[in-house]
Amino acid sequence: MRMGVLGSGMAAQAISARLAELGHDVVIGTPEADKLRGWQSSNQRVLIGSFAETAAHGEMVFNATNGTESLNALSMAGDENLTDKILVDVSNPLDFTNGFPPSLTVFGKDSLAEQIQRAFPMTKVVKTLNTVTARVMTHPLEVADGDHHVFISGNDVDAKEQVIDLLRSFGWINIFDLGDLSTARGTEAYLLLWVRLYGTMNTSMINIKIIK
Amino acid sequence: MRMGVLGSGMAAQAISARLAELGHDVVIGTPEADKLRGWQSSNQRVLIGSFAETAAHGEMVFNATNGTESLNALSMAGDENLTDKILVDVSNPLDFTNGFPPSLTVFGKDSLAEQIQRAFPMTKVVKTLNTVTARVMTHPLEVADGDHHVFISGNDVDAKEQVIDLLRSFGWINIFDLGDLSTARGTEAYLLLWVRLYGTMNTSMINIKIIK
Repeated sequence: MRMGVLGSGMAAQAISARLAELGHDVVIGTPEADKLRGWQSSNQRVLIGSFAETAAHGEMVFNATNGTESLNALSMAGDENLTDKILVDVSNPLDFTNGFPPSLTVFGKDSLAEQIQRAFPMTKVVKTLNTVTARVMTHPLEVADGDHHVFISGNDVDAKEQVIDLLRSFGWINIFDLGDLSTARGTEAYLLLWVRLYGTMNTSMINIKIIK
Repeated sequence: MRMGVLGSGMAAQAISARLAELGHDVVIGTPEADKLRGWQSSNQRVLIGSFAETAAHGEMVFNATNGTESLNALSMAGDENLTDKILVDVSNPLDFTNGFPPSLTVFGKDSLAEQIQRAFPMTKVVKTLNTVTARVMTHPLEVADGDHHVFISGNDVDAKEQVIDLLRSFGWINIFDLGDLSTARGTEAYLLLWVRLYGTMNTSMINIKIIK
């Protein structure tokens, strides 16, 4: 499948590499291609494009840009390159203006995922993977053999099903469908607990399991 | 031990009943004692007091009032009745002004627990139990035999140790010390995920387990 991954950070790199490893045709998108040259030298199956080239390439597009930059990045990617496509939003609206630990720039009665959905109403936004670090996103079995949960939120049931299939191909066993995209308010807010777990446990190879 | 439990809702009732069952000398505090008469008829070992009487009685005091009312309730309880005591804050600053699901009235760069600590600097505020429903607070073994985590946050290490002992007496096995009271920003924010889990799972007898 043709995949476009917007972003140049750890999440974008991890997702791009994993998708390529699984046989997909991947373009990673950034306005600062030089940042990715070193990484690309060991990931030669992934091509580098602009935001717009990357979104145009993807049958499915990932938003792995910094949350505070996502709306701008998606605007540069272009509405016409996102229309009728699934946009997998893995970003978090982390506000580091006061250092670590971060706060969030949007919270409570809204979420970054919903802001993106409102800005691109013809795109099928699916929020997932934002509750774990990049390596766990793409290699969930490396934490307790996958005995933990990833969440998924979105308004389009078919789009969620396609993303669930992709998550399973990454190795995810426990995929928790929270419901419509407004439930991303919950998973984005959880990041404020995640950063504290990370701060205490001295490893980012962590996640939570829902227990009942 | 003499225990004071501020509040009249499910959490205050559950904690008061459990403390009495464990042999503590418990007063539950509310300005609306009539609300608790029916409950008290089957919990006769628990006495009902005003906020001030309840705080004065407790060697350890619980804040189980509604989060949006907590600062006012604690003010009525009286600084002099809280000085040098442990205040176990189990409340959440849930904002239901737009109905369900709620938002939070304080978030990100601050927390209700820290607001309380600033208002009562001579009190040892310990945040815990706010991430589970009342029944799970007091009977953690009823969910997966206790195979899940409760969090604890506070600035006073000795106070946390005492509260950890109390949590163990409730049945808690996995008690995760997140660090100082600012980490309550994480557990309070988590409520926005909890309400979505609750909405999806149709039961409040749920919790999370930290996996690494």
